[in-house]
Amino acid sequence: MAMQRNSSTSSKIKLDFDQSTGVSVMHLQSPPVNSLSLDFLTEICITLEKLEMDKSCRGLIITSKQPKVFSAGLDIMEMYRKSPEHYAEFWKSVQEMWLKLYGCSMATIAAINGSCPAGGCLLSIACDYRIMGDNPRYSIGLNETLLGIVAPFWFKDNMVNTVGHRNTEMALQLGKLYNSSEALKIGLVDQLVAEDQILTAATETMAKWLAIPDHARQLTKSMMRKPTLDKLISNREDDIQHFVNFISKDSIQKSLGIYLEMLKKRKS
Amino acid sequence: MAMQRNSSTSSKIKLDFDQSTGVSVMHLQSPPVNSLSLDFLTEICITLEKLEMDKSCRGLIITSKQPKVFSAGLDIMEMYRKSPEHYAEFWKSVQEMWLKLYGCSMATIAAINGSCPAGGCLLSIACDYRIMGDNPRYSIGLNETLLGIVAPFWFKDNMVNTVGHRNTEMALQLGKLYNSSEALKIGLVDQLVAEDQILTAATETMAKWLAIPDHARQLTKSMMRKPTLDKLISNREDDIQHFVNFISKDSIQKSLGIYLEMLKKRKS
Amino acid sequence: MAMQRNSSTSSKIKLDFDQSTGVSVMHLQSPPVNSLSLDFLTEICITLEKLEMDKSCRGLIITSKQPKVFSAGLDIMEMYRKSPEHYAEFWKSVQEMWLKLYGCSMATIAAINGSCPAGGCLLSIACDYRIMGDNPRYSIGLNETLLGIVAPFWFKDNMVNTVGHRNTEMALQLGKLYNSSEALKIGLVDQLVAEDQILTAATETMAKWLAIPDHARQLTKSMMRKPTLDKLISNREDDIQHFVNFISKDSIQKSLGIYLEMLKKRKS
Repeated sequence: MAMQRNSSTSSKIKLDFDQSTGVSVMHLQSPPVNSLSLDFLTEICITLEKLEMDKSCRGLIITSKQPKVFSAGLDIMEMYRKSPEHYAEFWKSVQEMWLKLYGCSMATIAAINGSCPAGGCLLSIACDYRIMGDNPRYSIGLNETLLGIVAPFWFKDNMVNTVGHRNTEMALQLGKLYNSSEALKIGLVDQLVAEDQILTAATETMAKWLAIPDHARQLTKSMMRKPTLDKLISNREDDIQHFVNFISKDSIQKSLGIYLEMLKKRKS
Repeated sequence: MAMQRNSSTSSKIKLDFDQSTGVSVMHLQSPPVNSLSLDFLTEICITLEKLEMDKSCRGLIITSKQPKVFSAGLDIMEMYRKSPEHYAEFWKSVQEMWLKLYGCSMATIAAINGSCPAGGCLLSIACDYRIMGDNPRYSIGLNETLLGIVAPFWFKDNMVNTVGHRNTEMALQLGKLYNSSEALKIGLVDQLVAEDQILTAATETMAKWLAIPDHARQLTKSMMRKPTLDKLISNREDDIQHFVNFISKDSIQKSLGIYLEMLKKRKS
Repeated sequence: MAMQRNSSTSSKIKLDFDQSTGVSVMHLQSPPVNSLSLDFLTEICITLEKLEMDKSCRGLIITSKQPKVFSAGLDIMEMYRKSPEHYAEFWKSVQEMWLKLYGCSMATIAAINGSCPAGGCLLSIACDYRIMGDNPRYSIGLNETLLGIVAPFWFKDNMVNTVGHRNTEMALQLGKLYNSSEALKIGLVDQLVAEDQILTAATETMAKWLAIPDHARQLTKSMMRKPTLDKLISNREDDIQHFVNFISKDSIQKSLGIYLEMLKKRKS
């Protein structure tokens, strides 16, 4: 570990880079539950951009420093009682994060050491490989409908590419959260390991991905993912407008309000 | 059950509506084997339309009143020695039934309490969820090629969305009928239960689907299915013409004649 | 076997035709490892064309006469230190072989009696059904990235149609070679049998495919595969140019040179 270079870019991300392997580990540390706020998403995007430009970094592992949660998903506060301009800016940053990560030329592994709903699930399915802690309490899924909201088409496309059309149809309609073994069964994650072995397993798996010549792996990854990325790229403005209109609705704001009340009560 | 309202619309469909749950059960009762004739399809369409307009009905379970068969599929008599106009009218009603059911905004469950070939299979894969009786004698599949005919592209699209491309390629080319456990294995049905538990299981499952806010579930369902529906909607006339030309062929009429003879002999 | 007609078209292909069943067996016998050279591909194409025109031949089984290998894939010598014109001619023949086989109106079964990497894998996934020898030493996969090259989009499309998007993404990026049981698990092959039973099993399976009326099976196969075939047909020239440019690169030629050196050393 002597060769590790700590290059944290912000308080919300701790970044460890191992020069000997060319692998960075991005620790998400935005208390309490790594909710993806506008600020946090922006920092993630900036970090991804820097790493992409750094030729010595070939692989990226994303994991969480918060206990029991990988990421709770998009920060609902950013979608509640804000201005249309704010909704638009927020949604653009969600798009940006996904475009950068799903289209990332580095090999990417999500080391899922806690629960992983909604936007947290998106973050992990945008990676090349998913290793999850073997803990029945951890769950993963695109559970947007539970909150009365709807996953956008590109969340859906990424999910279809991961678990197929039929599983996606059920998962998204039911807002289903899968525990770790269910997630493995449908292919939503690729591997389960004991919790204290997640980073070790991710590092070992990364070595296999980096054994492949970068240019061949990158061209292949691009071939597989470009049509899905292009669908969003050519519809970004429409998708933002659609989100702003939807989230601004009285009925949706009311649903989110009820949900936030419920969260508050659960805490107290 | 005191709250049940019997709203049968026809002799071929017995419709039970439970106001307390918002769930209708459509019992198919067209003896002997629920063959989908022009009349029967028209009644199914009218029933679906009425239920869609009734805001109090949020879920639909489709099952059979006939012993050992869910539906034997399209009524071959409608395709044999009739006029081109008749073929066209019949095919339009098959399209209509599928468009209404696959695009249905209610949550839909097929409670498959018997064999389910060809058009019967289409009826069930157009639903959101399939529960089948755990009986090795019951089979399900798009077995059109066995009769020398060909499943149209939208049967195929619905099948690909359900069991994937590879399973569909084999299933359709071989006209394969799957028994209940084979069907579960490839995902053609979602759950097997003892025969006397099918409706109970369907009711329990429906409660889970109706726990999701309708508007979020419906928007998600539409996102998943609209591209597949649109393919037929923008090609309905061509698809009808294609069916009329194909089924009018001497060779196909001859095949159907031989098949009908075989059915007659089997009965006697 | 008295009815067998030996209609070998060349030294590299031994062709056995059984008139009683309408099934041809194409034995690949290009020593040492059935590498797909320009000559060999041309002979395969000519043979496929002849069989397609012969109405009495309804089914084709492809297998290997070489020990322990089905086909080692594209002949690297055809891609190393040759002229752009040669690369173009070679690539056109690879396209031609795939278009003829994937779009073949006969029922086709790959009887995989040995290892089956890269182009060998393509040859087998272009068939309707794959039976592999149950031998952990035999492997199959599109392992192009291991050599620093990239499977073209139509290899990828055929693979997605066979094992789905997610498996393809991992298989192609990692250049993964699956042993026989792994291949069965992800659906890359359909059946494993003892090595001395492969041809028997292929013959039995073929009988099931030929029990379906040809015209219905062929129309269904075409419906399933035409969109994938059309993608290449409408992009053949671009695909050739893309291959020529890529393979002509110094860096790629160097990679292939290193790989060929390694093969030489392994032999000695």
